[in-house]
Amino acid sequence: MKTEPTAAPPCTGPRRGRPRSEAAEQAIFAAVEEQMATGTSLSELTIEGIATAAGVGKATIYRRWPNKEALLVDMVSRLEEPLPSGTGSIRGDLVAMIEYMRLRGLAKRSRWVLKAALGQMQSWPELHAAYRERVIVPRREAARDVIRRGVAEGELRADLDEELLGDLLIGPILARSILWDDSDLDDPELAERMVDALLGGLAGPALRPVPA
Amino acid sequence: MKTEPTAAPPCTGPRRGRPRSEAAEQAIFAAVEEQMATGTSLSELTIEGIATAAGVGKATIYRRWPNKEALLVDMVSRLEEPLPSGTGSIRGDLVAMIEYMRLRGLAKRSRWVLKAALGQMQSWPELHAAYRERVIVPRREAARDVIRRGVAEGELRADLDEELLGDLLIGPILARSILWDDSDLDDPELAERMVDALLGGLAGPALRPVPA
Repeated sequence: MKTEPTAAPPCTGPRRGRPRSEAAEQAIFAAVEEQMATGTSLSELTIEGIATAAGVGKATIYRRWPNKEALLVDMVSRLEEPLPSGTGSIRGDLVAMIEYMRLRGLAKRSRWVLKAALGQMQSWPELHAAYRERVIVPRREAARDVIRRGVAEGELRADLDEELLGDLLIGPILARSILWDDSDLDDPELAERMVDALLGGLAGPALRPVPA
Repeated sequence: MKTEPTAAPPCTGPRRGRPRSEAAEQAIFAAVEEQMATGTSLSELTIEGIATAAGVGKATIYRRWPNKEALLVDMVSRLEEPLPSGTGSIRGDLVAMIEYMRLRGLAKRSRWVLKAALGQMQSWPELHAAYRERVIVPRREAARDVIRRGVAEGELRADLDEELLGDLLIGPILARSILWDDSDLDDPELAERMVDALLGGLAGPALRPVPA
């Protein structure tokens, strides 16, 4: 996690008096987020409105993005941190992936943008396409990669197709982080509990074979 | 499935010349759906625009609903058919529930309204609340009921909390029907495959205890 510096860095000539680029971008992103969280639809967003809310000139926005579509797509693409890399075991990789999604679900901005991207799919196909390309596809690819290795190494069942395995493993955390407003993502052991329940199966004693 | 009658019913005096109520409602619902599918946001929808698109007078709409919010909420509440009732076994009840959601996911209107309700959560809390109350809560309650019986009868594990069991059982079909655009809901055996995989567990031979 990044924290804001508590004191301004020393002024060094040329940048003096100019808004720091990073600060302006953060103010712009925050303004977009704030506007949408308070009910502005994507189609109602304007560069002028964003500039006013962010306290910057329109030129500051247009220097970075040619239009609001490009701004939103850029915002979406920056939401994602790199996916976790291999932990050395399939179970560990699955837990790491679900834990990553749990933490993304806890991050408010990410949650909001996903909902907006889903809700505006038809009316704003570019945003949906950007979300798909930068967020959904890499996650699904990463999941598929772990699943393929799991099947090859005998740690996952070989009689289910990859897509079904992916939905069974990833669907529950998606439902909990996106679809339910009130559901609990705070449990730090949630990812482990999910993976172990899925691997071991949900059947109770009445459906288990009697030990010989 | 209902099919449209191929011939008009015989005119019977008093109703002659008046638009049939059912036909007007269907035209109004279709107009709303069409407008939103082609990019009109919920906040941009107007009674006037809906009336024009549906080929009815504004009064025809206002006779039924006081405002567009009430119209949309009514539309949401009619999306849902009754949930399936008990099949006699826990496995059968789980399959029936997931099959119901698969069929709802295949129904375009239902899919679109869910996305809209999710995307507009912040800006239109009434619609989201209606969706929650009429669609989400009854489904979760029905799932919880099956799960409770399953745990009590020993067909589901007793060491997992109900909410986690619910997300593990329902999350995959939700992900597949709502979150992925391109995913396959056509397989008529999907619900059975999901339930049996979840009950039996996803672990492969390398993670299974060696039979004694």
